[in-house]
Amino acid sequence: MSANSVKALFFDVFGTLVDWRSGVARDAEMILKPLGFSLDWPALADAWRGQYQPAMEEVRSGRLPYTKLDVLHRQTLQRILPRFGIDALADADLDRLTLAWHRLDAWPDVQPGLSRLRQRFLMAPVSNGNTALMCDLARRNDFRWDAILGADHARDFKPKAAVYLAAADAFGLSPSECMMCAAHGSDLEAAADNGLRTAFIARPEEHPGSSDRRPRISVDISCRTTLDLAVHLGLQG
Amino acid sequence: MSANSVKALFFDVFGTLVDWRSGVARDAEMILKPLGFSLDWPALADAWRGQYQPAMEEVRSGRLPYTKLDVLHRQTLQRILPRFGIDALADADLDRLTLAWHRLDAWPDVQPGLSRLRQRFLMAPVSNGNTALMCDLARRNDFRWDAILGADHARDFKPKAAVYLAAADAFGLSPSECMMCAAHGSDLEAAADNGLRTAFIARPEEHPGSSDRRPRISVDISCRTTLDLAVHLGLQG
Repeated sequence: MSANSVKALFFDVFGTLVDWRSGVARDAEMILKPLGFSLDWPALADAWRGQYQPAMEEVRSGRLPYTKLDVLHRQTLQRILPRFGIDALADADLDRLTLAWHRLDAWPDVQPGLSRLRQRFLMAPVSNGNTALMCDLARRNDFRWDAILGADHARDFKPKAAVYLAAADAFGLSPSECMMCAAHGSDLEAAADNGLRTAFIARPEEHPGSSDRRPRISVDISCRTTLDLAVHLGLQG
Repeated sequence: MSANSVKALFFDVFGTLVDWRSGVARDAEMILKPLGFSLDWPALADAWRGQYQPAMEEVRSGRLPYTKLDVLHRQTLQRILPRFGIDALADADLDRLTLAWHRLDAWPDVQPGLSRLRQRFLMAPVSNGNTALMCDLARRNDFRWDAILGADHARDFKPKAAVYLAAADAFGLSPSECMMCAAHGSDLEAAADNGLRTAFIARPEEHPGSSDRRPRISVDISCRTTLDLAVHLGLQG
């Protein structure tokens, strides 16, 4: 496809740019093990992530006013801990564990890939994570964004149309001048429905056994990493 | 004062970080002179800027819904041009001239000053300029922000309380953990009224004869440049 009309790249973050599963499992172990707990740490990460869509759905449906992901993460953490034999945890420990999502590491291609893409495109995360969370991930992993867009900015969660449209509007662009880059078909499908271009980045390592290995929908670009995306968009190494 | 509790610095942009008057005068001359117009270019910049507060007041008062500064700038440009003998201009020229505000240059201390301050603080513009405008100024002048906050994010204009409070909330901080840095007393006064810390940066060069040379209100820090601000906050060169 001709990418000449694309002026901005929007990135999904959890799974697409950062490895939430290993990071959350690692921090849960680091925080809970010294408190005497021993459990299946990746299973805790999976259970927590399993609460992600239902929690956001309360907001998307209008049953709850917009609530930052940090707040939803804390609520859903408290909901799942009893399943792992943890019936009570001090507030400070709950806070620390909730912030595990601010301490995730990027896949190895991401920092050099975003750096290269930035030479030609406006760049923003369009994630369901809140602004402070996005800023902490950017500092930790040396991502250089032009702006933090996404849920906090639109005050709703993907895949609601408002999130994609508000992001394009913030850059003063039409949706067709923006490309959503994500490892998940549902995100790309909603972006395409709202007129954005789409790039699928395969992340089979996100969740062994259940990640999308190829796009479930028709996309403009299908690639393996952010460096591969740069090549597809005409930016050689 | 002890700056230990300050975690984020918020910056006013027009006047405080960038020289709007010379930049707008320069671009107006560059665009209008080849069309055969000859006029007092700094006077045009002043007349345009003179429409700034009244235009935003329409939004602050609730008479107009939130409108991006780019749109207000285009409307106010059309309002002042006849005063300079320009009764009609092609749409493309109006668009180009409106974007003069995206092509302003920073005062010489700003890039190194912000770079140094970034070592310790979360950094964001909290300006009445819209996101795309802030992104263009950041790219042009090599500012590295954690997020673009301010009017577009709060959907209202300074000095309304919501703009300062939404900025602190985006970083997950209390107002007292944030410091507003500006060359204008009215901005700092509103920030202080909402619980933020304040730093006055003198910019006598903003507008010869009428800029605030010292803070009109009591501030936590009063300094001459962003590098001087870094020294006040304990960051030596």
